[in-house]
Amino acid sequence: MSTPVSARPTPFLALDETVLDRNIAAMQARGRQLGVTLRPHAKTHKIAQIAQRQLAAGGVGLTVATVAEAEAFAAAGFDDLFIAYPLWVDADRGARLAALARHARVRVGCDSADAARQLGQHTVPAIGTDPGQTGGLEVLVEVDSGMHRSGVEPQQAGGVGVAAREAGLSVVGVFTFPGHSYAVDGGRRAAAEQEGAALTAAAQSLREVGIEPRVVSGGSSPSMEFASSHGVSEMRPGVYVVADAQQWELGVCEPADVALTVYATVVSHASGRAVLDCGSKALGADRAPYATGSGRLLDHPDARIVMLSEHHAVADCGPDPLPPLGSVVRVVPNHACNALNLADEVAVVGEHRPPGGGPAATIAHIWPLIARNANH
Amino acid sequence: MSTPVSARPTPFLALDETVLDRNIAAMQARGRQLGVTLRPHAKTHKIAQIAQRQLAAGGVGLTVATVAEAEAFAAAGFDDLFIAYPLWVDADRGARLAALARHARVRVGCDSADAARQLGQHTVPAIGTDPGQTGGLEVLVEVDSGMHRSGVEPQQAGGVGVAAREAGLSVVGVFTFPGHSYAVDGGRRAAAEQEGAALTAAAQSLREVGIEPRVVSGGSSPSMEFASSHGVSEMRPGVYVVADAQQWELGVCEPADVALTVYATVVSHASGRAVLDCGSKALGADRAPYATGSGRLLDHPDARIVMLSEHHAVADCGPDPLPPLGSVVRVVPNHACNALNLADEVAVVGEHRPPGGGPAATIAHIWPLIARNANH
Repeated sequence: MSTPVSARPTPFLALDETVLDRNIAAMQARGRQLGVTLRPHAKTHKIAQIAQRQLAAGGVGLTVATVAEAEAFAAAGFDDLFIAYPLWVDADRGARLAALARHARVRVGCDSADAARQLGQHTVPAIGTDPGQTGGLEVLVEVDSGMHRSGVEPQQAGGVGVAAREAGLSVVGVFTFPGHSYAVDGGRRAAAEQEGAALTAAAQSLREVGIEPRVVSGGSSPSMEFASSHGVSEMRPGVYVVADAQQWELGVCEPADVALTVYATVVSHASGRAVLDCGSKALGADRAPYATGSGRLLDHPDARIVMLSEHHAVADCGPDPLPPLGSVVRVVPNHACNALNLADEVAVVGEHRPPGGGPAATIAHIWPLIARNANH
Repeated sequence: MSTPVSARPTPFLALDETVLDRNIAAMQARGRQLGVTLRPHAKTHKIAQIAQRQLAAGGVGLTVATVAEAEAFAAAGFDDLFIAYPLWVDADRGARLAALARHARVRVGCDSADAARQLGQHTVPAIGTDPGQTGGLEVLVEVDSGMHRSGVEPQQAGGVGVAAREAGLSVVGVFTFPGHSYAVDGGRRAAAEQEGAALTAAAQSLREVGIEPRVVSGGSSPSMEFASSHGVSEMRPGVYVVADAQQWELGVCEPADVALTVYATVVSHASGRAVLDCGSKALGADRAPYATGSGRLLDHPDARIVMLSEHHAVADCGPDPLPPLGSVVRVVPNHACNALNLADEVAVVGEHRPPGGGPAATIAHIWPLIARNANH
């Protein structure tokens, strides 16, 4: 049963279901075109209903970032989960992974021999020690493809793989995150090329130590357009599903692809600008070097949020007339993942309005975030 | 009953109770020295136990940012609340304010005649229309002291006051937020001077229309050191209570004043840096123009977080040896208010360790945030 949007006090996160479904279908088509499977990153949305749609469209499983996210999605019935993170596993995390692996296929990342030994020490005794038979727990070696965040050099993947194998773990492949694809001026294409080269070299490094990589995993939303399928088996884009101002400004999407906005009220016209009641506690404080502001207005493409505090977003609307006091506008967060992680739920709007059409009239349903703040 | 810190999976927010109490006492002493009352901003912490300590030390009431925050603190028993925000009040918010004002003194901000009429229309009928008798609801006119976010010019305070009075509201004073005090190179002193001048002019503007300002309210943590008490009756600092990397880098506090840190595990030494398991979903993504990184390490003052993703904080430790894999470090968020708003609770550490001393050994108790995400 739908409720009027006006009954919900601003600011709140609104999700356009029509655009969401279109984004899911488009990325699945891109995966088919490349000949890779998709394992969408659920850290973006943390919403079971979205994950279900991603799998229904063809996704082979979910990517998550933490053990706690894996626990939340496992509790919601998802049984094929890749924690794409170089975990440092102590006794507590080991017990939690072992518990997860009894009911789901759980893959985890690893980027050092030390981390592999920790992982083996705290999981293998609980799961089983037969070579290649560690229940539902599998390891992917993380390699750095140029972002320089985590991961070993591709040529070192074999060494980490050997350490993991010696620790009793089942090593099934390699992965990377080409996060340097968040760049303008050809950066997306360059990152995608580095990603392909790094994954190919890493897979070869595993083969040289006698481990056949069944999974060669890459992907980020900005690099998907230029990704190579050569030697790559799966991709893990996340943000594409709802899009955000970063994707818009990187040229990854059009405003019509933005499914997630914050509905906000114009509370003041101080200094000739529109002061909105959504601040960094609703939008997130992300502002990448290439960002032209702290967020965009979906229905006013020339406007920029030029000042952002915790409860104020000050929008410079340029030559456009200011949206009236008390009116509701749709704000596009710079980074959807962090905006969503601030909210306990999203309002799914039942009536699609195109960019320029303004806020929807009704809320069709409310979807809860099942893994908000599940960082541990 | 205390529990070992090692039993809690990282990342999590830890609050040093000894430092917290010292910060509360020091700011109260500063208020006494200036001859102003303190009304600490509870949006920073959203924790009832901290608010209780602030009032026990002498605070006259709480400042909050939203109606929802006021509702949360009122439900926790706090009965003197100032919503220091230029509210746009519709029927829903009006009803909520009226309900609050039956049991608490509720002050709200207003920065235009239109907003004053809205506020009156949606609250006065529910509360009472006798002049000066609008129950527990009082209005402060917001003026801009140089931040240029919201608020009218000081000389226009009287005009807004008249509109509010004509709408049946009780106007009790003026307020400003000198947020441009978040600046280096003398900016803090300049902002404090502008704050004093703006409040004096605004109070005079109210007097000229026959409204005696009982409350003349200013304050931000960075400006308190240079604030003038001339003509000012109350101050509303917030962040001072826990401090953060912004205050540290602005020179407002020393590392020894930092009460709030994120305990994080070193998961990787990739690229010769320490990769920590706390990202922007634990620290917040704030990075002010003057910030030297995306966060600091309390026990490694030369280290900087040079790269921040949702679940990775990459710390460059300079010439220092890297903290060992698997060790726990204390990360100082850039902006405490946004870091706290990500968490549902904080772990209060029972054993004070000075900077350089490393993480505490035990957790004394857990304090919940009672107004997390209460943006509406």
